[in-house]
Amino acid sequence: MKSRPVLALAGGVGGAKLALGLSRILSPQQLTIVVNTGDDETFHGLHVSPDLDTVMYTLSGLANPETGWGLAGDAFAANSMLKRYGVPAWFNLGDKDIGTHLRRTELLNAGWTLSQVTAELCFRLGVRHPVVPMSDGRVATMVNTDQGSLPFQDYFVRLRCEPVAHDIEFRGTPPPSPAFVEALEGAGAIIYCPSNPFLSIAPILSLPGVRERIASFRGPRIAVSPIVGGQALRGPAAKLMGELGFDVSCAGVASWYRGICDTLVMDRADEGKKDAVAAFGLRPEVAGTVMVTDDDKTALARCVLELADEGAGT
Amino acid sequence: MKSRPVLALAGGVGGAKLALGLSRILSPQQLTIVVNTGDDETFHGLHVSPDLDTVMYTLSGLANPETGWGLAGDAFAANSMLKRYGVPAWFNLGDKDIGTHLRRTELLNAGWTLSQVTAELCFRLGVRHPVVPMSDGRVATMVNTDQGSLPFQDYFVRLRCEPVAHDIEFRGTPPPSPAFVEALEGAGAIIYCPSNPFLSIAPILSLPGVRERIASFRGPRIAVSPIVGGQALRGPAAKLMGELGFDVSCAGVASWYRGICDTLVMDRADEGKKDAVAAFGLRPEVAGTVMVTDDDKTALARCVLELADEGAGT
Repeated sequence: MKSRPVLALAGGVGGAKLALGLSRILSPQQLTIVVNTGDDETFHGLHVSPDLDTVMYTLSGLANPETGWGLAGDAFAANSMLKRYGVPAWFNLGDKDIGTHLRRTELLNAGWTLSQVTAELCFRLGVRHPVVPMSDGRVATMVNTDQGSLPFQDYFVRLRCEPVAHDIEFRGTPPPSPAFVEALEGAGAIIYCPSNPFLSIAPILSLPGVRERIASFRGPRIAVSPIVGGQALRGPAAKLMGELGFDVSCAGVASWYRGICDTLVMDRADEGKKDAVAAFGLRPEVAGTVMVTDDDKTALARCVLELADEGAGT
Repeated sequence: MKSRPVLALAGGVGGAKLALGLSRILSPQQLTIVVNTGDDETFHGLHVSPDLDTVMYTLSGLANPETGWGLAGDAFAANSMLKRYGVPAWFNLGDKDIGTHLRRTELLNAGWTLSQVTAELCFRLGVRHPVVPMSDGRVATMVNTDQGSLPFQDYFVRLRCEPVAHDIEFRGTPPPSPAFVEALEGAGAIIYCPSNPFLSIAPILSLPGVRERIASFRGPRIAVSPIVGGQALRGPAAKLMGELGFDVSCAGVASWYRGICDTLVMDRADEGKKDAVAAFGLRPEVAGTVMVTDDDKTALARCVLELADEGAGT
């Protein structure tokens, strides 16, 4: 394993899976996981960071294995009570999960940065690898659709991604978080986890200076395609790609990553798309990218890290 | 039944029981329940109003019948999670209950008064009788003890009333809430529910002008003793009475209510204390004051209201 640390960029469930795999192989000193916060939202006065929580819960072994997000065995009594009070409580906050949001909100209100809060929560849950918000400032992912400009959670949860998107916009240009800046400077490799490029990776790249630094990064940059056989493993990535005018395939993913990525790891099901990916200047690599078991996650992480080692050696 | 409305002053569980009985007999126009808020506290950023909630949950039929406070069938997942985060979460917030606190806090932060918030929450839970906080401002009940000056919840919940109290103090002198002022002006009778006089009734009386208005009130003023056979039915009333130098009996209660009360309703078990009560200038009346079933609550309420009618006629 290389000595310079790996920087992994992640969104929610898919990203958390590969992050878990990476954390099984790399030490906390060898890995920094930078997580999208463009989906963060305030619900009922609580600061909710869905992607940070998904990564944190996954790495702590507390995640709900059925959904990939939320906490295993969680219930929704508080949320039901909010509905009883006539509150639009469509986000469905879990009860245990609310413990996280209460603590996060309390510390933020006490003046902690989101980075500091995340480090504290992770420490308490036994997560040893650094999980870092992309920024301590606020970026709001807005989906501009045929039903108007929608905050991400409105689009994603309340409207179940049904509106037709024509554009995605990131409001706010705070600096990347200190640990993200440090990781960008010190990284030996950059890994784009198989998260939604448009909704999870793009907000990270939208931060001032980040895309430029990654574009001029000299080490290996490896993305794992979240599109397998023309479909997203979960979430709206495929629907969105089509609506935004991309080819709904790993080749479309390659076209999106052009200039900021060297290698695209695509699923075995997409073997036939290698040339199409190569046409966008990315080296196509084939692996099993569908992560169901923890072994799947570790295997894909190992494959990605081997590619990073090769890339570093060339 | 008299036409002028009844003003009931209440704290938590004992007060809520009689308030429920009164609400079964009187229409919403005939009754105002003013509730102690000296126990209110902020936990993890949530504004908690324990006595208001106990009355609201009791009147809506949602209260936990075993404890008298909290919501039936509630769980404590969020609170366990807070403990996991290393937070001193000794207050044991229920999950459903957190729904109430989230809504209350959200509305307070949006600029609503506590009176407005309480009316909204009660409306949503189907409580038709006016449940009114004693004030929209902040009063903090402090128990001065051999372990220092303790905020009420610290004394009551965290330390389980173990410190020896030598004094009780109410910090803050906000005006009584508008509906309380209105009820004081329009009331035909005042009923002190069998709540802890020192911790539940005294904060209400501490508000500017309240004790004076009640002292000069011309209608019947009736208290129900929370002490039965020298013991409190629940809570620290008896221990506290002794520590504060009162006789731990309904006679001690009578001495405390002297000048602001005409009639003390005492339990049948205390029949022998009638003269001792009368010695403090209160008319002693005997009734079954131990309220277990809803019928008990209605029966005691009926008894109190009959005494009020008699008092109004004299």
